[in-house]
Order: sequence, then C-alpha cells, then structure tokens
Amino acid sequence: MIEIEVKGYADDKVFERVRKNFKLIRREYHEDTYFQHPCRNFTETDEALRIRIRKFNGHFEAFITYKGPKIDPNSKTRWEIEVPVSDPDRHVEILESLGFKEVMTIEKTREKYYVDKGIVIMLDEVEGLGKFIEIEALAESEEAVGETVRILRKILISLGVKKFERRSYLELILEKEGSYGEAR
Amino acid sequence: MIEIEVKGYADDKVFERVRKNFKLIRREYHEDTYFQHPCRNFTETDEALRIRIRKFNGHFEAFITYKGPKIDPNSKTRWEIEVPVSDPDRHVEILESLGFKEVMTIEKTREKYYVDKGIVIMLDEVEGLGKFIEIEALAESEEAVGETVRILRKILISLGVKKFERRSYLELILEKEGSYGEAR
Repeated sequence: MIEIEVKGYADDKVFERVRKNFKLIRREYHEDTYFQHPCRNFTETDEALRIRIRKFNGHFEAFITYKGPKIDPNSKTRWEIEVPVSDPDRHVEILESLGFKEVMTIEKTREKYYVDKGIVIMLDEVEGLGKFIEIEALAESEEAVGETVRILRKILISLGVKKFERRSYLELILEKEGSYGEAR
Repeated sequence: MIEIEVKGYADDKVFERVRKNFKLIRREYHEDTYFQHPCRNFTETDEALRIRIRKFNGHFEAFITYKGPKIDPNSKTRWEIEVPVSDPDRHVEILESLGFKEVMTIEKTREKYYVDKGIVIMLDEVEGLGKFIEIEALAESEEAVGETVRILRKILISLGVKKFERRSYLELILEKEGSYGEAR
C-alpha cells in the first residue's frame, strides 16, 4: 500500500478552516518511538522503523511500522508496512536485543477529518514543533501518485497553507536539536 | 524469563514410555522460520530469531521469538523474549525490509505432556531429523538453573534417553546439509 501524504505548516487559522469545513473522525494521542538500525544508516537510506502507541476514546492500540524511502519528489509518499502489536514493550525488548536503538519518542495530538472518499486531513500538534496539517490518500499503485499529490497540495493551499514540508517530525526535531545524523 | 530446556535423542520406546506415564496436554504442529541478522553472525553469537506458526485443535497462533545465547553448559537454557503476532506474513515483510533473511523453515509435530507443576515434556518429530524428547521448566532467575538441569536430565535418563543434544534443530539440519555457517 502506498501512503500518499502531503504535509504543510499550519497555524490557528488553518486549523479553524478545517474544523469548520470537514467532519471530525476522531481525536487521537500518539506516542511514536523511532529506532535506528544496527548497521544501516536510516538517515542516508531514508527509511524509518517506528512503534506507535495510539490512544483515542479510551482505546489503546500499538503498531510497528516500517517506512521505505520516499518515492515522489513533491510529497512524503512512501511504501509502508504496518502491523498491530499486542505487547509493544516486549517488541521493543526484541528490537533492542537485535541491536536496534531507540532514537526518540515524539508525542503529538492528532485530529482526523473526513474530506472525501479515501482522503483524510490530520491536524497535528507536535510537542516541541508546533502545528502541522497533513492530507493523506492511499493507493495500490505508483501510477496515480503524481496526479493525486497535485490535488492534495491544491486542497492544502486552499486552506491557507503557504509552506510544505517533506521531512518527518523526527527529522525536524533532530535538526532543531542540531543532532541530525548523529543520534539517528 | 529463562527457559530451562534439556533435549535428547529419542526412539519409539522413549515415546511409548512418555505416552504411558504422563498426561497429554495437546498435539501441535509447528512451522518455524528462522532469520539471519543483517549484520550479526547468529552462528557466532549463538542467538536466534524465529517466527513460529503453531496449529492445534483447529487454532492458529503465531509468535516472534528472540533467543539469546545459551547460559548453561549442560542444557539449552537461554534468555527468551516471545510475543504473539496477529499477521506473521507482514511481520516477515518488515523483517526482510530491514535486511533480515530467511534461513530455513522447519516443520515438526509436537506432543506436549504434563510432568509436574511447571515441568513439561515434548515429543518432537522433526522433518528431516527424526525423534527428539525435550523437557522444559521456566525460571525467573539464573540461580536455580544448575540444579534444575540436573533434575531434568535425570528424568530423561529414566525414560531411556542415552544421548543429549544442546544444538538447535536449525543447527542440526544445517550441519546435516553441510551448509553450517554459510546459510545462517
């Protein structure tokens, strides 16, 4: 599955426009822990391995996710493999035994809005980074990526987004801390 | 959790004695797929990473298991971390994306017998290797290991076991195939 994803910087006005125009699916809280590979530099290969703990409406879910390199120059689109895990702490123990190292845990709140069939908007408030808006669509093939990205970008621009961002929250925080390429 | 485990070669007579003297818990079918690490030689480090698919009584379960190096000279006792996985195929995809490579899948039938509180005996019929008997106890600390191993060995000897084996089925099959140290 290809996750076609466009992200931009947001402010209160952008958040307000989304809240007025689209239907809230739910509000989530994420705790995302990223790992570095024992012998592969994910900064160079543009990959990521993440364990996400997601809480919403009293529920608790955890997932392990592999994100492959970006495959489109104008978006964050990547190959992604995600599976639910019932015991994230023990998964972390296995990963650490295999030489994977925790890089960082990033916390955020996310509001998810329904835009159209298969299209959702996320309003993210990321601890230490601020407000972002993401728009996402899923596709089975690479063919539709370019055109879909153009449509998604137009929607974000119409909501007031002026600056797009392809880097992940992990990359942004590591760059902000000046430790990019070292800790990861 | 430490898995204290002693394994020996068995034959029909050993199997018969166990079947007569102990209570069958259940009969299982295992499909164990072993992986090699992208940059660590598990043969040298005496570790293992396995995805087990277990079928019994119409049930289907899968687990991912990390096995640390052996910690006792007279048994197969190791540190072990095991977690259930709901989608083993996608877990394999994640492992392969991270550079882990499938070494081999080993199939066996296993009969599990209750011996005493916390002690079980397994009668294994391993494809390509034959009959084995394993006796297993679990312990929280390393202190009890030596004494427990002596007791477990005595039980196996009393059942007619003449030869013990510390190597895993994976090691035995790879040695038989003459590819030990290459494929793993």
